[in-house]
Amino acid sequence: MKLKVYADRMSQPSRAIIIFCKVNGIQFDEILINLAKRQQLSPEFKDINPLGKVPAVVDGRLKLFESHAILIYLASAFPSVADHWYPNDLSKRAKIHSVLDWHHTNLRPGAAGFVVNSVLAPFLGRALNLQAAAEAERLLTKSLASLETFWLKGDAKFLLGSNQPSIADLSLVCELMQLQVLDEKDRLRLLSPHKKVEEWIENTRKATMPHFDVVHETLFGAKDKFQKQREMGTISKPGLQSKM
Amino acid sequence: MKLKVYADRMSQPSRAIIIFCKVNGIQFDEILINLAKRQQLSPEFKDINPLGKVPAVVDGRLKLFESHAILIYLASAFPSVADHWYPNDLSKRAKIHSVLDWHHTNLRPGAAGFVVNSVLAPFLGRALNLQAAAEAERLLTKSLASLETFWLKGDAKFLLGSNQPSIADLSLVCELMQLQVLDEKDRLRLLSPHKKVEEWIENTRKATMPHFDVVHETLFGAKDKFQKQREMGTISKPGLQSKM
Repeated sequence: MKLKVYADRMSQPSRAIIIFCKVNGIQFDEILINLAKRQQLSPEFKDINPLGKVPAVVDGRLKLFESHAILIYLASAFPSVADHWYPNDLSKRAKIHSVLDWHHTNLRPGAAGFVVNSVLAPFLGRALNLQAAAEAERLLTKSLASLETFWLKGDAKFLLGSNQPSIADLSLVCELMQLQVLDEKDRLRLLSPHKKVEEWIENTRKATMPHFDVVHETLFGAKDKFQKQREMGTISKPGLQSKM
Repeated sequence: MKLKVYADRMSQPSRAIIIFCKVNGIQFDEILINLAKRQQLSPEFKDINPLGKVPAVVDGRLKLFESHAILIYLASAFPSVADHWYPNDLSKRAKIHSVLDWHHTNLRPGAAGFVVNSVLAPFLGRALNLQAAAEAERLLTKSLASLETFWLKGDAKFLLGSNQPSIADLSLVCELMQLQVLDEKDRLRLLSPHKKVEEWIENTRKATMPHFDVVHETLFGAKDKFQKQREMGTISKPGLQSKM
């Protein structure tokens, strides 16, 4: 029975799983769980993941959620996956676990916290929260500095001094790609002080093409939509001022 | 060269690593990194973990931090560790990764956020933050409910329907043990609605005795100290009122 991937391409860990499967020739059926329609809370999906989060996969009798756990499982269970994605070497593997764990409590809450609280919240049925966005921005900025000065070592193209991507590169880069829905000035303000991070995003994109761009089309569609809304807002501002 | 464990027994992931080594007969040297004295930020320790967090380990040429990554590494690298701690079976292992990942973004920020912001902050050089404590309490309560109704399935003694403990049991139970430093009424208010969780904490304690209690002595010392401070506060209150 083919692997089933329950995902919404607007979710960054969902994108990581889909790109990983495509790059590694893993056959799968993609089932859309539309977060804007709150389908992750439907009884049908809660039978897959009772905690109501995407992505989730079903492989035979195994139902699994949490994207890092899924990436590790797929890399271990499917023989088509090359070793560099999740090395057998214990020390290399340990370092990948370390950066994935760090991601959970640093880059992820920083990036997702900033994007959700400053842009996406209304589309998820919540209010914008600028104080939470400011706190998340501090964590994001600190995390980007740790990536630039520690995790991206020397001249290597990928995390941990590697010249080939691992599941950690894919997971963390997909996290950062969500910054695309920000106003371009905000995105550049956050990212452009970190040249190695910018190069690493591009290296990971190139290493997973054409799938990387194809799977991010949904995100780029959202980026255009938000940008148009901002431009309409910008156009109306002078009008508002002229009324004052 | 013997394994080196850099830890502060006041830190819950530090305790998990130390108990794991002792239970599994892994020889190690424990090096205290005193968090109250901010030794995690010293140049000597930053040579071990440039991000300045405990626990960290050094095993030969490998320097590693993030407690889940450390537990997985130790379970994989030391032949004395029984399979149930981190099973070779891919599906069982995947489920353990899943609960460990869930821990990062649910139980850990809930429990640690509540304890730090309502009790420990002054001892870490920060101010108490009751609003942050209230938000963390909501996440903690939700996480305890997920443990009770989902992760602790049926009549099994441990997580994921298992009758033997895994690294996830040890990590999550050590996380919850920090609630001991709360006022006893607060601790019981949070934990006592979750009978399975209470039994599971006791099951994990018993499965790792006597090391569990020995390694938690530092925490119980702190519990007594905080309790005495609370009692002194209670005694002084009527005095304050009588002056009004």
